Amino acid sequence: MNPIKVGLLGLGTVGYGVFDVLRRNQEEIQRRAGRGIEITIVAVRNVERARQRLAGACEVVDDPMRVVTDPNIDIVVETIGGYDLTRELVLTAIANGKHIVTANKALLAVHGNEIFAAARANNVMVAFEAAVAGGIPIIKALREGLTANRIEWIAGIINGTTNFILSEMRDKGLDFDVALKEAQQLGYAEADPTFDIEGIDAAHKITIMSAIAFGVPVQFDKAYVEGITRLAAIDIKYAEELGYRIKLLGITRRVASGIELRVHPTLIPGKRLIANVEGPMNAVVVQGDAVGATLYYGKGAGAEPTASAVVADLVDVTRLHTADPGHRVPHLAFQHDALSNTPVLPIDEVTTSYYLRLRVADQTGVLAEITRILADLGISIDALLQKESREGEQQTDIIILTHQTQEKHINTAIGRIEALPTVLSNVTRIRMESLN
Amino acid sequence: MNPIKVGLLGLGTVGYGVFDVLRRNQEEIQRRAGRGIEITIVAVRNVERARQRLAGACEVVDDPMRVVTDPNIDIVVETIGGYDLTRELVLTAIANGKHIVTANKALLAVHGNEIFAAARANNVMVAFEAAVAGGIPIIKALREGLTANRIEWIAGIINGTTNFILSEMRDKGLDFDVALKEAQQLGYAEADPTFDIEGIDAAHKITIMSAIAFGVPVQFDKAYVEGITRLAAIDIKYAEELGYRIKLLGITRRVASGIELRVHPTLIPGKRLIANVEGPMNAVVVQGDAVGATLYYGKGAGAEPTASAVVADLVDVTRLHTADPGHRVPHLAFQHDALSNTPVLPIDEVTTSYYLRLRVADQTGVLAEITRILADLGISIDALLQKESREGEQQTDIIILTHQTQEKHINTAIGRIEALPTVLSNVTRIRMESLN
Repeated sequence: MNPIKVGLLGLGTVGYGVFDVLRRNQEEIQRRAGRGIEITIVAVRNVERARQRLAGACEVVDDPMRVVTDPNIDIVVETIGGYDLTRELVLTAIANGKHIVTANKALLAVHGNEIFAAARANNVMVAFEAAVAGGIPIIKALREGLTANRIEWIAGIINGTTNFILSEMRDKGLDFDVALKEAQQLGYAEADPTFDIEGIDAAHKITIMSAIAFGVPVQFDKAYVEGITRLAAIDIKYAEELGYRIKLLGITRRVASGIELRVHPTLIPGKRLIANVEGPMNAVVVQGDAVGATLYYGKGAGAEPTASAVVADLVDVTRLHTADPGHRVPHLAFQHDALSNTPVLPIDEVTTSYYLRLRVADQTGVLAEITRILADLGISIDALLQKESREGEQQTDIIILTHQTQEKHINTAIGRIEALPTVLSNVTRIRMESLN
Repeated sequence: MNPIKVGLLGLGTVGYGVFDVLRRNQEEIQRRAGRGIEITIVAVRNVERARQRLAGACEVVDDPMRVVTDPNIDIVVETIGGYDLTRELVLTAIANGKHIVTANKALLAVHGNEIFAAARANNVMVAFEAAVAGGIPIIKALREGLTANRIEWIAGIINGTTNFILSEMRDKGLDFDVALKEAQQLGYAEADPTFDIEGIDAAHKITIMSAIAFGVPVQFDKAYVEGITRLAAIDIKYAEELGYRIKLLGITRRVASGIELRVHPTLIPGKRLIANVEGPMNAVVVQGDAVGATLYYGKGAGAEPTASAVVADLVDVTRLHTADPGHRVPHLAFQHDALSNTPVLPIDEVTTSYYLRLRVADQTGVLAEITRILADLGISIDALLQKESREGEQQTDIIILTHQTQEKHINTAIGRIEALPTVLSNVTRIRMESLN
């Protein structure tokens, strides 16, 4: 049988990775897919450099429209990134009957509903395993492996840059700025790290997983997003003393009133397997009602791990594109006409537990006032740590771990606590999840 | 669209689990599968009890042949277990054009090649996610999620009973017999635990994974199988002192001369994520050349985790059975005409490192003699621990960790060491893997 023909958009780290993996493992990949998979055309900005590097392996053009309209191409692999141009290119490719493989989480989290609808209308597949957690086949697990389950929640370390920074902060007691610089020097963080450290990248990914888990459209604009830039080394240390680690988690959970969809630093018990995921590694925990908790761990970024997912998608499309389109695996796991409109809850209505740190005057009655405020709002205390004053100081740190409460209640409590004259600092508040 | 019709063989723990999950989550499962999935007939030994329990939910018969030949049935789910009767039933079902879903690892590890060939000849699918690691979608990960990779090795904790026993031995310093009894009382071990504690169940599972990873037929008869019954509490303790945990691992690895396929107690570094998998949980690490190491963790047994995998397979078959049979996912990941005959290596030719424990007379020159024997055979020492003699005793324990060597060399060394007059015990030998 003839090889299936692939057109590639962009030739950066991921694009070259796809080339390398396809070439190196072509014999095994063909034995698995039943057909060869061949990249025949690539669109890049710098045509000359690409031609040199690819040494005649395929046609190199500078106009991406050439690729998405090429009549000889079966599948378009998009590795350009970004929203606007790629949206147009992907929609044009779909209109021309091409299947799509993409690693572009931003594109799908923002324009996914439109793209999936276009794909259905044109009977093509859009595969995006590489968009979430790099080489870990988590999309496949959620969309196919766990279909028996009512999924209850997902919590994931889905941004390697921030996990590396947090690991370094904990290991070496570094402040955020120092750890970020180290990550940049080692190539784990980009020159402009905003998307990673502000949690936006993780929010794109958890948005996609939330849609697949709960059968709702992608709705990135509803996600609550908080990064790690304001995290202090002292909180990592105190968390450790209390038996917890702080991780930047993407969390989505189904509760009676709707769906939680949020990214923020989170205290989790140190004994959980996911708490021990260090450095730039990714891990996702999925809680299903039948299977219980399952965890998926691996490299979440990099040329070859991402290429691993892209090429697996190419094999999937090769294996299954002849199937009756009505019987393929739906893009978001649920049949398109069976998505629900369960609302995403605003962060005020999210229920979780909290770590609070505050600086207080070291004098009688302070703790009584604080605990009274919490009690009045129905917030129970799970643990409390009062540090000894340093010699010569008349003030000290108090750390409180609360039981579950709604975010709006904790915010009210914090407002009242900060108004106390004996409370000398703003209250640092970090959310906490038991993950069981 | 009409529901897809399922016939169920056997109604034990797993069978009831499948019933419960399908009933409880039928609305979500149908939204995912695009069709209802309905069990219409069940074959059981005790018809009366099943009829009471199922309360008219479906037809109950005592003749399994009725199910596998029922013209109204699309899929047969086999939950009887064992080899002989089930082989006949499954082959009859296939001959009658039924797709098969089974959790039966023994059946597939022993008769898989015959069953898959029959399925191809009859254009039906045989799905068996539940056969390995319960609810963890590891078959799907290997067969579809990691298809880009040349898989290098797999190492898995794939028997919950033995992992529970080993966890208890380590936590509480128990001997094997005591921990086994505890496991039996808690329902983690069966009355006849042979298949679990002798490593046979794990060997069935690693045999299946090996075939999928490396594109070879299933060949259970070539697997090396060693259980945990001879493991002493003292070795778990010494391993811990040296920074290792002892786990019963199923291991399969591709090396230049062939494929390793083995189950045995194994020392692994305590800092590896998989070393921290405790109790009856399962975890599998897969090393691919592009993706690096990925890990999959969850419950490996029990009614609902197993049912999770069985029902996911039912959804898969429902979604994809209309596809051109030549383009479905191959049973063993590789196209049937592209399997290789790479040989499985005898254990003598396996290369790994070793933990050795021996009791020696506490006198000058003993260590020199032992290390000389190892050096003569080209075996390097990675670490050595000599315990102080107990007061009044003239003998002591020596623990040696070796670098990698072939099993036949270590066996020669052990023979020579045991012949030394200063060596007062047999040498305890446990294999060791760095898993990196």
